[in-house]
Amino acid sequence: VKTETPVPSAPVATADWPALSARRVASVKTSFIREILKVTENPEVISFAGGLPSPELFPTEALAVIAADVLRTDGRQALQYSTTEGYRPLREWVGARYAGRFGLAVDPDEILITTGSQQGLDLLAKVFINPGDTVALERPGYLGAIQAFSVYEPVFAGVPLSEAGPDLDALRATLTGRRVKLLYTVPNFQNPSGFTYPAAARRAVAEAVAAAGTVLVEDDPYGELRYRGEDLPPLRRHHAGTIMLGSFSKLVAPGLRLGWVCAPCEVIRQLVVMKQAADLHTDIFAQRIMHRFLAGGGLPAHVARLRAVYGRRAATMVAALRRHLPAGATCNDPDGGMFLWVTLPAGGDSRALFERATQQKVAFVPGTAFYVDGGGERAMRLNFTNTDEARIEEGVRRLAAALAGPG
Amino acid sequence: VKTETPVPSAPVATADWPALSARRVASVKTSFIREILKVTENPEVISFAGGLPSPELFPTEALAVIAADVLRTDGRQALQYSTTEGYRPLREWVGARYAGRFGLAVDPDEILITTGSQQGLDLLAKVFINPGDTVALERPGYLGAIQAFSVYEPVFAGVPLSEAGPDLDALRATLTGRRVKLLYTVPNFQNPSGFTYPAAARRAVAEAVAAAGTVLVEDDPYGELRYRGEDLPPLRRHHAGTIMLGSFSKLVAPGLRLGWVCAPCEVIRQLVVMKQAADLHTDIFAQRIMHRFLAGGGLPAHVARLRAVYGRRAATMVAALRRHLPAGATCNDPDGGMFLWVTLPAGGDSRALFERATQQKVAFVPGTAFYVDGGGERAMRLNFTNTDEARIEEGVRRLAAALAGPG
Repeated sequence: VKTETPVPSAPVATADWPALSARRVASVKTSFIREILKVTENPEVISFAGGLPSPELFPTEALAVIAADVLRTDGRQALQYSTTEGYRPLREWVGARYAGRFGLAVDPDEILITTGSQQGLDLLAKVFINPGDTVALERPGYLGAIQAFSVYEPVFAGVPLSEAGPDLDALRATLTGRRVKLLYTVPNFQNPSGFTYPAAARRAVAEAVAAAGTVLVEDDPYGELRYRGEDLPPLRRHHAGTIMLGSFSKLVAPGLRLGWVCAPCEVIRQLVVMKQAADLHTDIFAQRIMHRFLAGGGLPAHVARLRAVYGRRAATMVAALRRHLPAGATCNDPDGGMFLWVTLPAGGDSRALFERATQQKVAFVPGTAFYVDGGGERAMRLNFTNTDEARIEEGVRRLAAALAGPG
Repeated sequence: VKTETPVPSAPVATADWPALSARRVASVKTSFIREILKVTENPEVISFAGGLPSPELFPTEALAVIAADVLRTDGRQALQYSTTEGYRPLREWVGARYAGRFGLAVDPDEILITTGSQQGLDLLAKVFINPGDTVALERPGYLGAIQAFSVYEPVFAGVPLSEAGPDLDALRATLTGRRVKLLYTVPNFQNPSGFTYPAAARRAVAEAVAAAGTVLVEDDPYGELRYRGEDLPPLRRHHAGTIMLGSFSKLVAPGLRLGWVCAPCEVIRQLVVMKQAADLHTDIFAQRIMHRFLAGGGLPAHVARLRAVYGRRAATMVAALRRHLPAGATCNDPDGGMFLWVTLPAGGDSRALFERATQQKVAFVPGTAFYVDGGGERAMRLNFTNTDEARIEEGVRRLAAALAGPG
C-alpha cells in the first residue's frame, strides 16, 4: 500500500449531502463578514471591517521566552492531556482579577477555561437553549453570539441599544411578554456599536432579569481596554447568578484561543460535561504560557500600551469622521474597546456605500449584519485598533469620497 | 470600585439551574472514567485506566526550540486571529500523508483542522444528527464519540465488534432494518478493545454503508502506532464519501489539541460554519509549531521510537496477563494502539473487580463504560502505553491478586 502513487479513491460517492444535514444547519447563516474579508485581503484596501487587535503590539518576544521555558521546565505536563476545567493557576488568576478590579469574590471552581470566549457561547447554548426557546440580545448584537446561539435554534428577541444604553422599557416588555430563557449582553464598549451601559442601567437590567428568572450572560472581552473614565461595576455586582464571559484575545493575543466562563458551580459542572464532549480541554501549553505571562507581572505595562495606542487611534478616527461625515450623519466617541458606530443621514444605505467604498479601497461592516430581525440599513461598524493613525486619516478620506459619490 | 475588598456579590441568586437546563443535558452521562481518574491520582496506584501517551516520549526539546522560533519569525501571524479552516501548510501535510501512506488523493480543501479530534466528533454531530436519528457504532464503542454524539440526542445502535472484526451480518441487519444516519468506526486498534478490522471486512463495511446511504465516519487516532504487520487500507479506499478523522495527540502530543477532519468539500463547508460558531479557529500558534515539527523531518525517528517502546509494553502486558489470568479469561494481543481487552471467565464482574483492584492499587476501566445499551460486564480495558515494563509486570500481579480475592 505504501508505495502506490496517489489515485482518486474509488468508487466515487455521490452522497446527497444536503439531504443528510441536520435541521440546525439551515438555521446558521454564513457571515457576510467572511465575504468582506475577501475584499480586505487586498493590501491596498484600508480595512475598518475586521475586529482584530494590532499585531505589532503582541508581546511576541516575552511569549517566545516563556513558551520555550514552559516546555523545558514543565514540558511533560504542558503537552499531556489535562483537566477539562482548565489550568488551575490560570483559573485562580482570573478569580483574583475579578476581586482586584471589582471586589467580586470568585472561587477558581467558578471558572472554566474555554477555547476562546466563542466556545463559552457554544457551551452556554448547549446547556441552556432548547429549540424554540427565546434568547434576548442587544439590537444591534454581537455576531459571534448570534452564530453560536443559532446552532441551537432559538427564537431571538432584540433589545434596542443606543449610546444611552439598553432600552429598559423594551427590555421589561420583552421579559414580561414571554418566557425569556437567556439575555446576552456586552455592557462595555459593545461589539458592534462601542456603546457602554451607564451605571444605573446595569442595576436596572440585572434586577429585571433576576425577577424574570432569565439566565443573564455578561460578556466582557473589551472591559480592560478603557481609554478614559473609570470602570463601571459589572452586572454581576447586582445579580450574583450572572454568568460572565471573558477573553485573553484582546488583552494579550487571540491566536492562542483562550477565554473563560465564570458561573455558579452548578452551571460550571454542566458546562464541563459539555466541554468534555466538545474538545476534552483547551490547549494546556497555551494556558501555561498565558499564566506565566500574567503571573510574571508584565500585564500592567502591556495593557497601558494597548490603552495608549488604541485610545489615540479611536480619537483620530472620531475626529476625522466628524470632519468628513455629511450633515445628518452621526458617530459615537467610545470610551474604550475596538469599534465605533456610524449612522448615515436619513435615506442612507450602508450596503450600497460598502460597494462604493470597495472601489475607493476602504472597507467596513454594514450595520444589517448585526440585526437578527432587520434594521441597521443606515449603520456601519468601524474598527480602529488595527490601523495606524495615518491610514485612519486616509481611510476616512476615502470613505468620505465614497459617501460623496453617486448613489 | 478598584479599591474595594472582595465581598460576595449581592443579592444572592437562587436560580433553579436544573429547571433552566436544555433537554440535551440529561442525555449526556458524566463519564465513569472521571471517577476512575480520582482513584488514579494516588501515585501508588498503577493505572491501566487512562488513555494517555507516555509523556517521557514527547519531543519536548524539539518543540521548545520550534515554539520560540515560530514566535520570533512569525509571531504576528502565530498570535493573531486566523482562518477557521486551519493553517494551510498543516492541511497540506495531512493531505500528503494520506497520499504517501495509502495512495489517497486528498486536496487540502478537504481537510479541516480541529481542536483535537474530539471537536471533529462534535462538529460532525452538529452537521448530521437530528434528535432521534439513528447512529450506529461499535459495541464496545469509543466513549468520546458516545459523549459527543449524545449531546445531539440520537438513538444508538450497536454493531458487535470482536477480534475477528465487526459482525457484518449484524451491521447489514442494522442498516436495512431502519434508516441509519451515520456509522462511526475505529478500524485500527480500536478504543477500547484494541481490535482491528481485517482487510475483507473493510471492503464489506464500506460497501454496505455506501449502499444504505449512511454517512461513514472512519476515526483513526492510532493507525500510525502499529507494532507489527502491514498497514491495512482505510475504508475510504472503498468508499470515497467516507469522512476520516485524525489526530496529532498520539503521534506527537495531546496537550496542543490538534486533530483534523477529512471530508468532501461540501461537508467541509458545513463543518466550517459550525466550527466558526464553536471556537472561530484552532490555536494557530499550536498549528504552526506542529507543522514546523512535521516539516522538519523529525517525525519518522519519533514514530519509530513510539512504536518500539509501546510495542515492548504491549508485549510485556500480554505475556504477563497470559501468565496470571485464570482459566477461561481471555485477552487479545493487539497489533498496535494503546489498549487491550480482557474478558473474565463466565460469571466474572469487572465492576466488582475494579473495587478489589483499587485496594490492590491497580486500576483499569470496567467494560460496561463502553456499551450504550448494556453489556461488557465481564470485560475490561487496559492501557499499556503509559506504564513502564516493570510496573506493567507489577500491575498485572496486583490484578491477579484482586482476581484471586473474595467476591
